Amino acid sequence: MLTPGATIGILGGGQLARMLALAGARLGLKSHVFSPGEREPAYDVCAARTIADYANEAALARFADAVDVITYEFENVPAACADFLNARKPVRPGPKILAATQDRLIEKQFVQSLGIETAAFADAPNPGALARAVAKLGRPSILKTRRLGYDGKGQIMLQAGTDLSVAFRSTGGAPAILESVVPFTKELSVVAARGLGGEFRAYDVCENVHERHILATTIAPASIRPATAAQAVEIARKIGEAADYVGVFAVELFLVEEDGERLVVNEIAPRVHNSGHWTLDGAVTSQFEQHIRAVAGWPLGSTRRHGRALMRNLIGEDVEQWRELLTQEGACLHLYGKTEARPGRKMGHVNFVSEED
Amino acid sequence: MLTPGATIGILGGGQLARMLALAGARLGLKSHVFSPGEREPAYDVCAARTIADYANEAALARFADAVDVITYEFENVPAACADFLNARKPVRPGPKILAATQDRLIEKQFVQSLGIETAAFADAPNPGALARAVAKLGRPSILKTRRLGYDGKGQIMLQAGTDLSVAFRSTGGAPAILESVVPFTKELSVVAARGLGGEFRAYDVCENVHERHILATTIAPASIRPATAAQAVEIARKIGEAADYVGVFAVELFLVEEDGERLVVNEIAPRVHNSGHWTLDGAVTSQFEQHIRAVAGWPLGSTRRHGRALMRNLIGEDVEQWRELLTQEGACLHLYGKTEARPGRKMGHVNFVSEED
Repeated sequence: MLTPGATIGILGGGQLARMLALAGARLGLKSHVFSPGEREPAYDVCAARTIADYANEAALARFADAVDVITYEFENVPAACADFLNARKPVRPGPKILAATQDRLIEKQFVQSLGIETAAFADAPNPGALARAVAKLGRPSILKTRRLGYDGKGQIMLQAGTDLSVAFRSTGGAPAILESVVPFTKELSVVAARGLGGEFRAYDVCENVHERHILATTIAPASIRPATAAQAVEIARKIGEAADYVGVFAVELFLVEEDGERLVVNEIAPRVHNSGHWTLDGAVTSQFEQHIRAVAGWPLGSTRRHGRALMRNLIGEDVEQWRELLTQEGACLHLYGKTEARPGRKMGHVNFVSEED
Repeated sequence: MLTPGATIGILGGGQLARMLALAGARLGLKSHVFSPGEREPAYDVCAARTIADYANEAALARFADAVDVITYEFENVPAACADFLNARKPVRPGPKILAATQDRLIEKQFVQSLGIETAAFADAPNPGALARAVAKLGRPSILKTRRLGYDGKGQIMLQAGTDLSVAFRSTGGAPAILESVVPFTKELSVVAARGLGGEFRAYDVCENVHERHILATTIAPASIRPATAAQAVEIARKIGEAADYVGVFAVELFLVEEDGERLVVNEIAPRVHNSGHWTLDGAVTSQFEQHIRAVAGWPLGSTRRHGRALMRNLIGEDVEQWRELLTQEGACLHLYGKTEARPGRKMGHVNFVSEED
């Protein structure tokens, strides 16, 4: 259990690290950010920073010496880095969940082993296996690299006429899996937290809209049946327990409406999640504070909502709306301190919390 | 009007500077903290810091060059320092209000000139004048130094038997004023903000309880008649306009209940205020963000409350309650990163926001 004044080490220096550092500061904790980037959003709000590669063991060792616990803002922390650090200071969430979520094949097998539904899938390590997978799952289906995909990168939809060897090469020729297309009507997520002693808390299930594979808006709570919402939280609880998880995580789900409502797990994010940004203004405890509490070994905070919440991402040039958003009554603006508004880049977000539930 | 990425210069490095820096970061602004202290709570959350005396003109000049606008966390910024900086970059709120609030005599004259009631007072520059002041105001009455008093320092109650020359020396022998004792039933405050273009917004009036001259708890809203609350906000508006104020300020008021409710201004704090800390969890826009918006030349944010709010200061050893507070449902803990819990020192605070209004 950390005491106030202790230092949280954070791998990664982007907006999630920035918001984690801000949440830690509220609680009297210092942050030390480790990232290879020369200029990172989190550097402006932390007590210390290390600019080095994740493979630089001398820098990692000094970092581990300087902090009390280590966490991260992205699931692609190299396994060697996580293991190296974990031998020196607690890494939370642990390296085990990183291994499970860095590989889509292992992730889906893990989820299915808990009796939770995922899209149908088949291993596609090479073009020959891909042809057999297509024969099994049919078309349309989605070819995804097993590792390092995010925001729609490393995936391609296989339509009736798609040439399979061209498709396989187009995602880089790396080991891949084929997934069936889930006929979903809504995309949902559960942002939940698990404490060091197993305490579990979830925010209300939210409803997400993606545009060009990037999250555009989140609404909390989702318009779904109470039993479906309870089932979503139960799925998160099962996953958290099976992974012996510590920290905040998100489970992305598809809602299928065929003779009622059914949930299909899409993926697990072992970190604070964009669909939880509304909690900064819409809940008693933000997801960032919740994560800090968990990795510090502290009790979790209340996940009560203040009202109905809407989060809208500011992507690329959207950030130019800041002037107008500042004038909108009740708009809570968050900007990440990034200087260059490249297309597809998350520059900030805005939360609206209405009084009615 | 500042643009995101700009730097706010903050004079002072205590908890108010720390919370201002955190609020600025949410909005994509950097903070540069200037303080003579070697270790300050705000240093851990800012992009840059200058450790130098407020009389060090070379350091002040470099600081002014490095920032886009300058604000402060305490009203005792030396006038020479404020004037020096204001010649280089905008100082908000302006040096004028500093001059008016650094001297209790000038402050009371300013308030009375607006037709607003204060305690009866008389100038007491020396022991002879003090004797005449006591003859006029009677006893009990309160002798206060004109300058540099806070949290009850630099003041003494004159009772029936108090020796006047001893009393005058006990506050340091500096120019003082004598104030009559206001028979108040409650201590209230209005935390309000005024934008660069004159826009005015106030949070709901709050009710404060002091212990040993230090704020202990704040409740928002205060249990007072609606007409009294409206009058309190009107008083703040008048003061803000007369001072051509930019930023957040607090007006501390006494409630006198004699044939109804009457308000008497106690003092003005030209800065974010301890009685506004509940807004961090209990309002759409925190007082810290509101101040940043104002000094950045941006529109003010919504002051809507999420519910009934209670703030309790953690003073000195109170901070040891952090473990227990983390387990209390709905308790929002704020710690300032101070290492030594000296008696009377503000170490943190905790907010509770209940759902009902």
